[in-house]
Order: sequence, then C-alpha cells, then structure tokens
Amino acid sequence: MSENNENIQFKVTDELIDQVHVLIENMDDKGTQELLKDIHYADIAEILDDLNIDQATYVIKLLDSEKTSDILMELDEDDREKILASLSAKEIAEEIEELDTDDAADIIAELPEERQKRVMAQIEDERLAAQLQELMTYDEDSAGGLMAKELVKVYETWTVAGCLRRIRAQAKDVTRVHSIYVVTKDEKLIGRLSLKDLIIANNDQKISDIYKSGVDYVNANDDVEDVAKVMAKYDLEAIPVVDDETTLLGRITIDDIVDVIKEEADKDYQLAAGITQEVEADDSILELTRARLPWLFLGLLGGIGAFLIMGGFEDTFNENAVLFFFTPLIAAMAGNVGVQSSAIIVQGLANDDVKGSINNRLIKEMLLATLNGIILAIFLFLFVWAYERQTDKALAISVSMVAVIIVAGLIGTFVPLFLNKRGIDPAIATGPFITTSNDIFGILIYFLIAKLILGI
Amino acid sequence: MSENNENIQFKVTDELIDQVHVLIENMDDKGTQELLKDIHYADIAEILDDLNIDQATYVIKLLDSEKTSDILMELDEDDREKILASLSAKEIAEEIEELDTDDAADIIAELPEERQKRVMAQIEDERLAAQLQELMTYDEDSAGGLMAKELVKVYETWTVAGCLRRIRAQAKDVTRVHSIYVVTKDEKLIGRLSLKDLIIANNDQKISDIYKSGVDYVNANDDVEDVAKVMAKYDLEAIPVVDDETTLLGRITIDDIVDVIKEEADKDYQLAAGITQEVEADDSILELTRARLPWLFLGLLGGIGAFLIMGGFEDTFNENAVLFFFTPLIAAMAGNVGVQSSAIIVQGLANDDVKGSINNRLIKEMLLATLNGIILAIFLFLFVWAYERQTDKALAISVSMVAVIIVAGLIGTFVPLFLNKRGIDPAIATGPFITTSNDIFGILIYFLIAKLILGI
Repeated sequence: MSENNENIQFKVTDELIDQVHVLIENMDDKGTQELLKDIHYADIAEILDDLNIDQATYVIKLLDSEKTSDILMELDEDDREKILASLSAKEIAEEIEELDTDDAADIIAELPEERQKRVMAQIEDERLAAQLQELMTYDEDSAGGLMAKELVKVYETWTVAGCLRRIRAQAKDVTRVHSIYVVTKDEKLIGRLSLKDLIIANNDQKISDIYKSGVDYVNANDDVEDVAKVMAKYDLEAIPVVDDETTLLGRITIDDIVDVIKEEADKDYQLAAGITQEVEADDSILELTRARLPWLFLGLLGGIGAFLIMGGFEDTFNENAVLFFFTPLIAAMAGNVGVQSSAIIVQGLANDDVKGSINNRLIKEMLLATLNGIILAIFLFLFVWAYERQTDKALAISVSMVAVIIVAGLIGTFVPLFLNKRGIDPAIATGPFITTSNDIFGILIYFLIAKLILGI
Repeated sequence: MSENNENIQFKVTDELIDQVHVLIENMDDKGTQELLKDIHYADIAEILDDLNIDQATYVIKLLDSEKTSDILMELDEDDREKILASLSAKEIAEEIEELDTDDAADIIAELPEERQKRVMAQIEDERLAAQLQELMTYDEDSAGGLMAKELVKVYETWTVAGCLRRIRAQAKDVTRVHSIYVVTKDEKLIGRLSLKDLIIANNDQKISDIYKSGVDYVNANDDVEDVAKVMAKYDLEAIPVVDDETTLLGRITIDDIVDVIKEEADKDYQLAAGITQEVEADDSILELTRARLPWLFLGLLGGIGAFLIMGGFEDTFNENAVLFFFTPLIAAMAGNVGVQSSAIIVQGLANDDVKGSINNRLIKEMLLATLNGIILAIFLFLFVWAYERQTDKALAISVSMVAVIIVAGLIGTFVPLFLNKRGIDPAIATGPFITTSNDIFGILIYFLIAKLILGI
C-alpha cells in the first residue's frame, strides 16, 4: 500500500489539533506549513473549526491561496466572514481567482457591498470579473445562482481531432469534465458528448455526426430545489444551464446538488422540530434563542387557549375532576397524530409522491385515524374502567379520544396540502404549529363530546 | 432548439397517463411501444406508478429489457416485487444482464431465496454471475453492498497509448468513467488517473510516471453512512472499494450516495415525527398503522402516566383547579423544548458538528433554556395575574414552568448524546419518545414546585 493512499477512516485526531495549537502559539510558520502540507483542505477546515478566529486567520495567511481558497469554502459562513474581514481586498481577490466561478461568486456575495466593489477591482483576469459580475445577478435559490461558468464546450462544426486538441486547453480550467456540451456557432445548446464518446470515436469524424442531441437542461431562473429533484430523478451528474433563448450559460454539478439536498432536508427537519431554519448546535445562545423562542411562544399561546377552554368547563366538571386529568393524554394524542399525518404529507410532497385529490387523502387519513383510534380507545376504556369502575366515564373518555384522533389526523393532512396548493412551504405546518392547534381543538372536542355522553 | 432537447419542466402530464391507459385497455402493443419509445425510463416509472400491477406488468413485458431494467430500478420496492413475481426466471435474468452489477445484485437480493437460485442459473455470462455472487455476500448497509464491479482499471506498467486502447474496450461497459484506477499486477490499488490526465499526457509516457498516488478509498465493510459523509466532505464523485489487503474490489458512485443521503434524511425525519421508518403516503392503511400505532401507544401510556400523577394531587384540586388547567400548557412547553434541543443535537451528530464534552452541551442548553424560560415566564405571569388576580398562583405557575423548561431542555440534550455514545441511533430520541417522557417529568415537576410555592 502506497503511503499516500488514505482510508476514509483517517480523521482529524486530537493529537493533530494539539500539534497545530502548539505550532501556532510558537508562531512556527515553517512547522505549521510543513504539518499541513499533505492534509486535505476539508480536514484543515475541520481543524480551523477548533481554533479561534485569530489563529485561523494566521493559518489562512500562511498557506498558499490554491489551498486556502478551498479551505475557506468548507468553513461555516460565520467563520469565513470573520476571516475575510481581516484579509485585504487584494488577498481576497487572490483567493477568488483560485476558485471555481460558482464558489467565487458566493464568497463575493457574502461580503459587505462596499467591500465587493474593492475586491472586484482587484481581480486581474477581466474575463473572470465579467463572469462573476454575471453570476451575481442571479437569485441565490435559482439555477443561475448555483451554476459555474466552467465547462467544456465544442462547436458542432469541429472534428474529433480538433476537438481533442482544444479540449486539452479548456479542460485545464475545469475540475471535472462530465459532459462536453455541443453548441451552434451562436452558442445555442444543441447536444452533448461524453469524453468516452470522444475517445471511442475516430479522429476525422465531425462533432455534428457523433453528438447526442437529447440533452436535459435547466433555465437559469429555475428553482434549485426543482433542479435537485430532476438531477436525482434522472441520475444526472451535471446539467447545463441556459437562458430563455437556450444560449448555454453554465452548468451545475452533482456535488452542489448534494449540498442543496442536505440543506433542504435539514431545513424541513428543523421546521418539524420548531426551529427556525439555519441554526447549528454551535451557534451562540442568542442565535439559538432567536430560532427557538417564537415557536415556544406559539406553544405558550396554545397552552393559554387550553387553559381558557378548561376554565370554561370548570362548573360542569367539579364532580368529574378525573376528566381533567386526561387532558394531557388527549393533547398528546392530538399532537402526535397531527405530526405523523402532516409529516407523511410533507415528505410525500418533497418527493413528489403525493398524487390524487385532497379528498381522497382525507378519506384515507380518516380511515387510518379511525382504525388507530379504536385500537387505542379499547385499551384506554379497559384501563379507565379497571381504575375508576365507572362505565359511563370510561366510555366518554374513550369515545371522545377517537373523535379527537380523527380530527387531528384530518387537520394534519389538510393543512400541509392546503399550504402547498397556495405555494407556501408545507414544512411550516409540522411541529409546534400542528401540535399547538391540535392541542386546542383536541381539548375542546374532548370536553364537548364527554359532556354530551355524560349528559351534564 | 433541437426537438430532442428537454427542459426539466417536462413532467408526466395527466394527458399522457390517460393516453397510456387507453392504449393498454385496447391492448395496443404497437401504439404503447411507439408512445413510450422516446420517454425517459424515470418518467415511464412515474407513469407505471399510476397503473395497477397487471397494467404495469403488461408495459414491462412489452418494452425491451435495456429500458425496462432501468424502469424497474426506479419503481418502489413493493411494486417491483409484484411485477417480478409475474416474470419468468429467464425474463428476470435478461433484465439483470442489462443493469450495472450493484443494481442487479439489489434486485436479486429482493427475490425469494428459491427464485434467486433459478434466476442466477439463467444468467449466461459466467463472469457476471460470479460478480453478482460476490456482491450478494456483503451486508446491504456496507460499502460492499453499495459498490458496483464496473470500473476502469489500468496496470502501472502500461503506457498511455496502450492504456487508451484498452480503456476503449473497458469503458463500453461503464456508464460513467469518473476515475481510472491504477493497480499493481496483483490487483492492489495504488493510485488513480482521470480521463483528462490521460488525454493531456503524451502517448509514450508510462502510467507509473503520470498516476496520482494519493487516492481515497473505503473498505468493503465500512458503513454506507460513513462513506456518504466522506464523499460529501471531500466532494468525491466516485470512491474505490478495497478489501483488507487493499485489493481493488469495486467502486461507489455519487448517484448512489445521493440516495443514501435522502434515505437517511427521510428516516430521521420520520422518526422525529413518530413514524417507524420507510413508509410512504401511498402505502396501505395497514402498513401505515403498523408504522404509526406503536408511537401512539407510547403517547397513550405517557398520558396515563400524567393522569396518575394528577390523580395523586387530586386533594389539592378543589381549591386550586386553575393549576390543573395549565397542565396542557406545561406538557406542551416540555414537549416543544425537548424536541427542539434533541433535534439540534441529532442534526449536529449527523453532520459531525457536535464537538466538546457532554457537560459543556448541558451547561449551554441550561443557559439557553433558562433564558427562554424566563422570557416566557414573564409573559405567563402577567397573563395569569391579570386573569386571576392572584400573585401567588401566578408566581407558582410561572416559576415551575421555568423549571420544567430547563429540565426538558436537559433531557432533550442528554438523551441523544447518551444514545449516540452507546452506539444507538440518536434519532429515535426525538419525536414521541422525548415528548412523552417530557410530558410526564414536566407535569410531575410542575405540581411539586407549585405545591411547594403555594404551601399546600
């Protein structure tokens, strides 16, 4: 086994981090450079996570920009922002010149507006500056905001031999070639070729004879989530981006899509847990409070609503305190059923799995909730009857729980479908939103039905 | 714009599905073939989702196996199983021969054991049969279970020219080349090359002069989730898989990893919502009940626990009914805070973001919960005081809510960290598990502290 090969089990060890700490404290430029020379940029980024901003900036200034540009891209946005703040416009421009255009445009977009201009002025390559200028005009959630200008393109009139010659030049700028895009002389996308096709073809064939005309593409204004769905569905590793006239503008690669998919999944997960998107365990207490408190406040209002409802039934139930003791159970069931049914709908919508009419969904959920409700109610009836020896109360509590479960399931199914129809992200309907509204409805229904059955 | 080019906006329309329905009802073989000829296999799979199994089987038998094998891979496992059940062993073997080895092995593994042998016996290509036999020995959650045998490999002793000639032969079997792996004469992985490197090199150079010796690899026994993390971290599009002696066995490509990431995110999301993994909105009511009922039952037990606790405080009820009316609020706050804090930890663990000791996490969560709790308590105090005009009760309810929120946050933080340390998936600690336990603890703490403050 060659010494350079690395099993993925290689991790950033505590010893390595300690070593870096010592070297930095001693301001040992040479030693630090030597130690980090053969370490992957993603691993160095992980080490920098463990340093403070001054130490991280020291490391960034020490290594050459070919490596540090990649390291910067791996860091948290917050950390990157702080490090960039202590670099000069010239230094930032050097980092940017090492990056692919999509990453470079993202970094510039994160800078304060005044800084952006100064950094752009320091970029020596005019073609690159123009490309970045173009990329920055797109919305960050659009295909244009995600695409890179780096791609390999050939004109339909070229020969295979001429093509290979020119590709050698173009390919040096492109990290991964994936597809070669075939365009007309006025830059309209008409097809694609793989490197493999080119290698297998004869040198004197023309591109127009061998290219594949069926090529998927996206418009620069398409939403990135749609792009992600399409690339996953059709197993694409790269997709070209065009304007309304099908002029080839850039391309999106699968590694960027992996990030989109992860971010999307994280966002939905956090919304379901009652956390406003985009916080991490390592964020400050104030940031975490800002993300969590609004949802807790919603829960507080729901709890006050439940209090008011229960207070309204106080006179009726002086004789029946036991009914009040089951409200946490009722609220929990309403919340759990609501979260389950809304989560299934939200996930189905995200995966384009939800077909058929809203009515059919509601009927199915009603049957499902009824089935689950009756099974649970039988158990609850037996418990209450065994414990209290009062058939009428056991019946009132169990029957109203079934009703609560059915209504909770219907609300959990209807709300995300309704939001989705209105073009609102259905993920906000999960978590505290659905548990809070179901708590209130659940408790109200519970007392109304119990009152009816007990005839009080 | 060429007629064959497709914007991603192309979707399976209702008209198209209706057309297919009509053609199938008329048993119009020719018409069906003609209509589906130019449609992507992923789109045909989407159409088949809308047909019943007999209709879908009819379509599968009608199209040629080059296309149907890809369609089968896109279908739900349940649907695929039913369709395969009505194909002969010979027909299944034909499908399998069209697939990449990783997909082929997955399909065979889904068949009943008896059927597996009969299908394997029908595979004419002996090399393929041996490869499938090997792949089926790996655990489905291991790198070996995910890898394909298709890859392009060259020996270090070859020249660039000889290499290109041989690659032309090998590459025909490989959908996407990504990297070319360099091995010694006894098949040990020593490095890699990109097609680009090969195209840029001179024809008479030797592979040993131009290959890159630093190559990431995984062991066939590594867990797929670890493989996914590494490929995402290092932005890899393919990774070679080796055995303990670094013999090159196969490779894993990024499209399979995209599926792993999505499945993992879906599983965590469902667990957080109280759904046993792997159900979809379109599954049967019985399957959905099986996935949902156990969690609801857990919630029911929690509710009964809350009932028993409240019953224990019944004596105080007559004078202080208002305390009981706030139990849904207390339960909701305990549940919400618990879900928030556990979700942040679970997500942090999934992204390898959680560093530092458990103690530090707990201290941070305590500060956070105290801050949130006090803000909410001030609001609650003002409400209760305004509504009931009783300072002692307002104080008792508010102070105990703060205590409940702190304990709930600590439980939500501790449980997933603890499970993770023990090697148990921390995602099970979210959702109903945490809300139920927090309901019980919350209500108990609430009554104990309220009683203490009110001196009853």
